[in-house]
Amino acid sequence: MSSSNNKIPVAVLAATGTVGQRFVSLLADHPWFEVVAVTASERSAGQRYADAVSWVVPGEIPTSVADLVVRPTDSDPGDASLVFSALPGDVAREVEPALAAGGYAVCSNASALRMEPDVPLLVPEINPDHIHLIKAQREKRGWSGSIITAPNCAVTGFIFPMKALHAAFGIEKVHVVTMQAISGAGYPGVPSFDILDNVIPFIGGEEDKLESEPRKLLGTMVDGGIEPADMVVSPQVHRVPVMDGHVAALSIKLARKVSIDDVNRALEQFAAPEGVADLPGTPERPLILRKESNRPQPRRDRDAGNGMSISVGRVQPCTVFDVKLVSLVHNTLRGAAGGAIQNAEWLVASGYLGEKPFER
Amino acid sequence: MSSSNNKIPVAVLAATGTVGQRFVSLLADHPWFEVVAVTASERSAGQRYADAVSWVVPGEIPTSVADLVVRPTDSDPGDASLVFSALPGDVAREVEPALAAGGYAVCSNASALRMEPDVPLLVPEINPDHIHLIKAQREKRGWSGSIITAPNCAVTGFIFPMKALHAAFGIEKVHVVTMQAISGAGYPGVPSFDILDNVIPFIGGEEDKLESEPRKLLGTMVDGGIEPADMVVSPQVHRVPVMDGHVAALSIKLARKVSIDDVNRALEQFAAPEGVADLPGTPERPLILRKESNRPQPRRDRDAGNGMSISVGRVQPCTVFDVKLVSLVHNTLRGAAGGAIQNAEWLVASGYLGEKPFER
Amino acid sequence: MSSSNNKIPVAVLAATGTVGQRFVSLLADHPWFEVVAVTASERSAGQRYADAVSWVVPGEIPTSVADLVVRPTDSDPGDASLVFSALPGDVAREVEPALAAGGYAVCSNASALRMEPDVPLLVPEINPDHIHLIKAQREKRGWSGSIITAPNCAVTGFIFPMKALHAAFGIEKVHVVTMQAISGAGYPGVPSFDILDNVIPFIGGEEDKLESEPRKLLGTMVDGGIEPADMVVSPQVHRVPVMDGHVAALSIKLARKVSIDDVNRALEQFAAPEGVADLPGTPERPLILRKESNRPQPRRDRDAGNGMSISVGRVQPCTVFDVKLVSLVHNTLRGAAGGAIQNAEWLVASGYLGEKPFER
Amino acid sequence: MSSSNNKIPVAVLAATGTVGQRFVSLLADHPWFEVVAVTASERSAGQRYADAVSWVVPGEIPTSVADLVVRPTDSDPGDASLVFSALPGDVAREVEPALAAGGYAVCSNASALRMEPDVPLLVPEINPDHIHLIKAQREKRGWSGSIITAPNCAVTGFIFPMKALHAAFGIEKVHVVTMQAISGAGYPGVPSFDILDNVIPFIGGEEDKLESEPRKLLGTMVDGGIEPADMVVSPQVHRVPVMDGHVAALSIKLARKVSIDDVNRALEQFAAPEGVADLPGTPERPLILRKESNRPQPRRDRDAGNGMSISVGRVQPCTVFDVKLVSLVHNTLRGAAGGAIQNAEWLVASGYLGEKPFER
Repeated sequence: MSSSNNKIPVAVLAATGTVGQRFVSLLADHPWFEVVAVTASERSAGQRYADAVSWVVPGEIPTSVADLVVRPTDSDPGDASLVFSALPGDVAREVEPALAAGGYAVCSNASALRMEPDVPLLVPEINPDHIHLIKAQREKRGWSGSIITAPNCAVTGFIFPMKALHAAFGIEKVHVVTMQAISGAGYPGVPSFDILDNVIPFIGGEEDKLESEPRKLLGTMVDGGIEPADMVVSPQVHRVPVMDGHVAALSIKLARKVSIDDVNRALEQFAAPEGVADLPGTPERPLILRKESNRPQPRRDRDAGNGMSISVGRVQPCTVFDVKLVSLVHNTLRGAAGGAIQNAEWLVASGYLGEKPFER
Repeated sequence: MSSSNNKIPVAVLAATGTVGQRFVSLLADHPWFEVVAVTASERSAGQRYADAVSWVVPGEIPTSVADLVVRPTDSDPGDASLVFSALPGDVAREVEPALAAGGYAVCSNASALRMEPDVPLLVPEINPDHIHLIKAQREKRGWSGSIITAPNCAVTGFIFPMKALHAAFGIEKVHVVTMQAISGAGYPGVPSFDILDNVIPFIGGEEDKLESEPRKLLGTMVDGGIEPADMVVSPQVHRVPVMDGHVAALSIKLARKVSIDDVNRALEQFAAPEGVADLPGTPERPLILRKESNRPQPRRDRDAGNGMSISVGRVQPCTVFDVKLVSLVHNTLRGAAGGAIQNAEWLVASGYLGEKPFER
Repeated sequence: MSSSNNKIPVAVLAATGTVGQRFVSLLADHPWFEVVAVTASERSAGQRYADAVSWVVPGEIPTSVADLVVRPTDSDPGDASLVFSALPGDVAREVEPALAAGGYAVCSNASALRMEPDVPLLVPEINPDHIHLIKAQREKRGWSGSIITAPNCAVTGFIFPMKALHAAFGIEKVHVVTMQAISGAGYPGVPSFDILDNVIPFIGGEEDKLESEPRKLLGTMVDGGIEPADMVVSPQVHRVPVMDGHVAALSIKLARKVSIDDVNRALEQFAAPEGVADLPGTPERPLILRKESNRPQPRRDRDAGNGMSISVGRVQPCTVFDVKLVSLVHNTLRGAAGGAIQNAEWLVASGYLGEKPFER
Repeated sequence: MSSSNNKIPVAVLAATGTVGQRFVSLLADHPWFEVVAVTASERSAGQRYADAVSWVVPGEIPTSVADLVVRPTDSDPGDASLVFSALPGDVAREVEPALAAGGYAVCSNASALRMEPDVPLLVPEINPDHIHLIKAQREKRGWSGSIITAPNCAVTGFIFPMKALHAAFGIEKVHVVTMQAISGAGYPGVPSFDILDNVIPFIGGEEDKLESEPRKLLGTMVDGGIEPADMVVSPQVHRVPVMDGHVAALSIKLARKVSIDDVNRALEQFAAPEGVADLPGTPERPLILRKESNRPQPRRDRDAGNGMSISVGRVQPCTVFDVKLVSLVHNTLRGAAGGAIQNAEWLVASGYLGEKPFER
């Protein structure tokens, strides 16, 4: 099937899971992309997508995708030029490189390859230049396609205020405590038996990601590679009975003493870099600074900017470091499928779409 | 009415509120105390307690209290020798000193007088010697009675691991992020409209208490006064949709480098001081160190030790300070009425019951 | 102030409460109406709306309303021709008739006058002809304006399947058990202390409304008045820890025996009457019949049709009556502000806008 | 191992699941029974119980059971005379008869055999004489042991008011709508992704049980068999975000007209039959009639009578039938493990313990 409307044909890998469903849902009306293929595990392969999926995200299954026949995970994603991956880590580690080698541009939400030195870990407003790691990646691996990755959902939130302050003043240390929504665990995910009327001070593997990913995201391109930012992030993560929206409370040690007014100004002035601001997925205000005493809140702020804006508030001096603040991200929109789609937009805008036959 | 069973006759002030109800409930079978008087605002005064109260705490209204006639807040608490105060701050500031002047021993849960230099801010396992501030208090104020106070409910939790580590190694700095239960706001308290599927990063006045109270609690008696501990606590507080149980995530800078084994050992060896261990309200294990990867949790751990034990877990090295851990307190038992009752036990055991006529 | 864009100028009474906020929010982009005045209690009068309101509904305060100066409840609503009332019952009973007498068309969400014989209790898809009660109303009361009312939020949901089945087969008896969202209680409304991890089998005054309102809604215009439908509705209502969306489980005795296929067909064929279907507020599918075994669900179905569609499911034979089913309504959209706005649209479309000077 | 304390040695089958854990927890201090064996699936067999179980019920693992070695499900339960079964339905259907044939008294919480004509479906306060079905069971099947079953957890609640009214006035029809807690689904059970801020109008297989089991429970022993009660029960079931406690709203058609006072009297006079009242598991008040307008409520009433009392309230006339009321049961105590243990007590008290060697 070739795309009839000059949109870029895309595939969604692991399309029946919750992140996969979010991809399908968000791509339904995308101005640049059109879903032409979906994959899932053997169990679902061969079925109509609408029959194979247990649809759990808001809204109905897009009619344009409902009738697609699900392909097995390890098959060729057909006429797609670009693939969105919601694969589990271990599968991603095998399938994604194979696709990149086959000429596909892979925009992944999986954690497997995020920390590979030649794989961009990308948030377009934060480190748009890291897209150019693709050059080194292709050269080193001999790929005609490419892989770019989106960060952990919690990191995707608090990296915004970190970026604003790091760019302005330098960050040396961060203690970050997260309160994460249950949707972050996918489906079936967290048993209600565990989380109703409760807080769980643990999410498997999460704290490692919160330690390492910010340093790469805020790192510098040097000689075609990333030099990690020279800072230390120490996280403590919690699951809370909230549907969507990860809250992070940060205490930050800056490289130099500044006033709270300076901090507020740096946050307020945060803006998407040129080019990035024009992407369909970039919200008008990527970072929204709230001045009320009791914001941000997941239920009230997660949908800001169609779920793509990061809300920051409770900015105040910290007596053990320099500044404290609270940030909030919609973990399944900006923090997962929405972020990976915006990454794909940036990849396309940067001219890195692979060699798969495609005329726009 | 005089107590027929040689128990100490006590009164509960503001007995119709949630903390007042907890006092009434916990005192129902207390081995030392018997409730002989209850007070409330003008609106309830003159009614039977069972008619005046809108009972919202677990269990039924104790029959021994149900028929007591509610007295107005500013009246004399009758034959009581000791009064438990659940008064709101502004009222406490007036009523409690008047009662102390009248010879009553006032064990308060109110915040009004906690930071007064001559008023003990007391947790028996933490700073039992602070009870002797009563001497200075009586001398300075000319009271025959006394006032002792229990700390903020969140502080009451994390002060246990802080005490264990401060005693062993010295604490210099703490960044603490709390996730607090809705019962901490009393009744009606937090609207469900605000907290269902949500986190609120703000509790009025709370952060000030978390900054100041730990320093007094861990302070030293010098010349009959308290010299605050030389440390800095920087808090960020949150309300979460949990019924009971305040969680606190702490990152701690110690005065000297120690291993995590040392930290665990210090926490495990925490024990109630002599004398304190024998109080009816002191749990067998005041601090329970949990080794599972996902504990403590409010719903699963808040009732440990009849709601009087503090559960601590997730002890791990911290890359920005020295050690991270998570602690949990049952905020309406240990953190409110239960703590104030244990304080009263310690006051009695220490010989400070006032001059009110009473034969045990 | 006259409306610059040929929209009908409207006022919102009690505009700072939750229903009032919903009115303001929904009217922000309404194709026919423009908010030119807002009223609230004395306490708020004279302030900017944005300063007076504690905004708790989704989204931000519409900029077109933020700067309006709040008028006192009993004042003249200025240049408005039409007023939306979110007044509490007792106030509505006085203010609304005074406004109708003054020539205003009052579209009320209050319960005060719903059961008055000459006041339309209206849902445009259900009983559009009842709008003509306005004739009798004006004649009897000598009003140049009018009052129309929207039903109770729970009734607004299950009246849809009742209408479909009553029209097709006749309904004799209904036992209905509701599970109602906390937003139905307004703000602050239900304390989280009462509803977290709980169900409350009581809502003050609610069961009376569920008994009486359906009979009026399904009643027949006879001689310019409403003859109530000859049926009996017996309700049991519950509050559940859900944010938005009232669920109702119904067992229905029909006037004649029919198959479940007949029932499903009657539900599927439900459609908005001519004229009503064209209103801006009428959803494409007013009644959505769901065939899945586990729908409708509040969180997944409440937003269907922009919160204006009623979802029905779990249709099955009943061994004590004839048919059982479950219906769901978004209680603050279709069941409150959204319904009252659609009523206003129908009033305008029916030519009953009052005599207030206004050129469209 | 023989029991050293003259308690009856018992085994718990499927001891690592949530119901199995409740059995282990409740039996820890049981005056008559002592757990000497635990079984689980192959995966856990051979491990220490404390190592095999993921403990999720309140309190800690009883030390007396922690060190037992888990046996495989199909093995002999050792020195036990009596076994408690928390087996899943399909396994129960095979394993329980084999054990009964082997001389064990099996007290089951499984649904598999509940409706077998010769298997008692028992609630001691409701139908104590049904225990004598064991005679027919042994005769027909040639067993030296026996099987008795406890009803569905929701049925166990509303059968109490049904029994009271059926005994007094006769019941002809019941429409019952349930709001069931998530603990009823076991572990991991209901995903939080499905139930947070939601109601699910479906529980697989549940409505069939609510239709059939009440008729057997209220049936009459005739010629050694059960003649089901001549009544019709039509259920609609829902899952709600509540931890423990199933609520049922009933509308009941009685065989004769009676006043609400009569109904209240019948409910108030409900008492455990002679013999049953003396069992350790029988609460002082098996049915608690609440007169407040807003009770029973799961969180406030589920623990009444140690979780073994049924709370009933909201008794009012019904315009479509005769009487409406709301009942509440603690689904994992009275409605599961607690009920099965009380059943075992009644079996022992009735002299039906099997032939397994045991001296009390």
